[in-house]
Amino acid sequence: MNGFVYDIPVKVYFGENQLGNLGAELKKFGNRVLLTYGGGSIKKSGLYDSVTDEIRKAGLELFELSGIEPNPRIDSVRKGAQICKDEKIDVLLAVGGGSTIDATKYMAAGACVDHDPWEFFSKWAPIEKALPIVTVLTLSATGSEMDPGGVISNPETKDKIGRLAPQLLPKVSFLDPTLTYSVSEYQTACGAADMMSHIMEVYFNMEQDLYMLDCFMEGLMKTIIKFAPAAMKEPDNYEARANLMWASSWAINGFVNGGKQQEWSCHPMEHEVSAIYDITHGLGLAILTPRWMEYCLDETTASKYYQFGVNVFGIDASLPEMEAAKKSIEMLKEFLYGILGLKSSFEEVGIDDSNFEIMAKKACMGETLEGFKSLKQKDIEEIFKMCLK
Amino acid sequence: MNGFVYDIPVKVYFGENQLGNLGAELKKFGNRVLLTYGGGSIKKSGLYDSVTDEIRKAGLELFELSGIEPNPRIDSVRKGAQICKDEKIDVLLAVGGGSTIDATKYMAAGACVDHDPWEFFSKWAPIEKALPIVTVLTLSATGSEMDPGGVISNPETKDKIGRLAPQLLPKVSFLDPTLTYSVSEYQTACGAADMMSHIMEVYFNMEQDLYMLDCFMEGLMKTIIKFAPAAMKEPDNYEARANLMWASSWAINGFVNGGKQQEWSCHPMEHEVSAIYDITHGLGLAILTPRWMEYCLDETTASKYYQFGVNVFGIDASLPEMEAAKKSIEMLKEFLYGILGLKSSFEEVGIDDSNFEIMAKKACMGETLEGFKSLKQKDIEEIFKMCLK
Repeated sequence: MNGFVYDIPVKVYFGENQLGNLGAELKKFGNRVLLTYGGGSIKKSGLYDSVTDEIRKAGLELFELSGIEPNPRIDSVRKGAQICKDEKIDVLLAVGGGSTIDATKYMAAGACVDHDPWEFFSKWAPIEKALPIVTVLTLSATGSEMDPGGVISNPETKDKIGRLAPQLLPKVSFLDPTLTYSVSEYQTACGAADMMSHIMEVYFNMEQDLYMLDCFMEGLMKTIIKFAPAAMKEPDNYEARANLMWASSWAINGFVNGGKQQEWSCHPMEHEVSAIYDITHGLGLAILTPRWMEYCLDETTASKYYQFGVNVFGIDASLPEMEAAKKSIEMLKEFLYGILGLKSSFEEVGIDDSNFEIMAKKACMGETLEGFKSLKQKDIEEIFKMCLK
Repeated sequence: MNGFVYDIPVKVYFGENQLGNLGAELKKFGNRVLLTYGGGSIKKSGLYDSVTDEIRKAGLELFELSGIEPNPRIDSVRKGAQICKDEKIDVLLAVGGGSTIDATKYMAAGACVDHDPWEFFSKWAPIEKALPIVTVLTLSATGSEMDPGGVISNPETKDKIGRLAPQLLPKVSFLDPTLTYSVSEYQTACGAADMMSHIMEVYFNMEQDLYMLDCFMEGLMKTIIKFAPAAMKEPDNYEARANLMWASSWAINGFVNGGKQQEWSCHPMEHEVSAIYDITHGLGLAILTPRWMEYCLDETTASKYYQFGVNVFGIDASLPEMEAAKKSIEMLKEFLYGILGLKSSFEEVGIDDSNFEIMAKKACMGETLEGFKSLKQKDIEEIFKMCLK
């Protein structure tokens, strides 16, 4: 068991009718606000009006950057960083899902350096400072509202790279479950698959760590399994949306890690898939995760699958370990493909084997993914092949 | 379901060998450090030497206040606040359990006002500022290392009063499970009872709130039930001490509350018991909690007991609700009195009924405790009577 440092100073306003605090929170950081968002959905929903009203009421000066894409691109980051410099922005306000928040984090960091922001990814340029970031979340999935990371795509180089830095933690996040009422059935399902993966990347670990954190992760997974279908059936079910929203933040804000230090597996593999094929991240994870589990299952790892199956899916604890382990994979598939209705293979989403070699090589950076099981390029190619049908 | 604000910016160094970071963390707040502690146990264990070495290595100036008592008294707070003023202290370092940390919080607040610190309790004087506080925890129980509260006793007035203020949150806490190896079997048991109560005060609530937080609370309670006996049998079991330590912080740092707003019940009752009889807080809670549960059980509340019994103690889910509810109380008693070996009645600890009336009146401040069930003075007297044998 390893030591760790816990340090998550993000302030969260959770619930309906909290936006009245937005102006005062922004004002703590200065007067010049860059509002960032994606497509027009926040205009249609009225959220754009509510947010800009609050900014005006607080007497702040508003600048805007819209059009941040899903799987956000380095060009948006460049634009935002430039606006921050040109307009002497004091604080960035990201209104949207993980893509908008991720891109905004790197605008905030890019505003503080002279080089091209892509160097944060291509050259691992140091992130020593960032402008303060406030978020208003509209999609429960990536957890970016309470974590120090972000993933940026570069279509020119076909790279999609994630990076963490404590300077990128939002100062304040507004989590209003009613803002996710308009999230489609499909996006709700993809978000749930993403959250499940965030937890499973940590939970599947043979290192002895804190039992209380395993219990917490099991609780989060049960929460997702219980409420994702409820939110899909009844989009304005407050209880379902609230549970999913708070679970999405806690799945990945670092608390569940404790002292576990293993690398993630499915996320690096999926990033290579969506870097080329631009599919929704959660969908890519939903296809990959059960195959990764099948590939990693053996006598040395079965006990973790057993624990997962019994404590999360309620599988009969008296089953032999390996039988319960296999059943836990079946239960996960049934949840992802049956209940959430996500597509279950690369074939169904138009991905063939033509890029597997390069994708696998990039996923392990030419070496090894030191995850639940160590995966080399050949292992990853094998997992990709298992995803074909 | 209510909204809430989540804001816990405490930085935690968890694990062995983290004290090397103490000097640098203290230095962020200034050069003049007031070290506070209780009896001589930190000298015997060598912790005093490690801590003062770190302070000296960082080039900081050290001041000391020792002798902070269990159920800490307002006189210690007064002394500490005066030293802070006289010596122009920049930061307070509490080394000990909840009593030392609680007292230190009010020294830090008292240093910033001109009035007697008891007025924070007797007159609810505003707490607008406090000097920064750093803690090194040596006992897993009260959660004071990660919460904004503290309870102070005044033997002259026989009052024991708790109060919360965000200014009192420690800036940094060092949680090293090995520092709790020397905690006695009895104190480990009392700490476990205290933590269980912190969770149960929130968990027993008929308001519909976040399922994910109920799951988390159940996980924390299972953690305590699993590891308190292990730590009692084998005091240097790192896994047991680590789980108890991190669970104690999360039981009461505010995360589990979500939007629940109900008052606590057993803590206000227990504070009146230990204000007069000076018994260990956790022991008082262990005697009171099952009686409070018995008193509050009826057709309207049984479903919560059922959930508790099934999810925490593994009671057969097919039992009728009321039967499972009653069984859950029996399981809790077996844990507290059988497994932890705590005394089970007021009689056994030398408490008779002579002060029940005044204790009950103070516990509800002459009105009503708006907890799981509303309790008036007569109800509380009844619960005290149930504790006699």
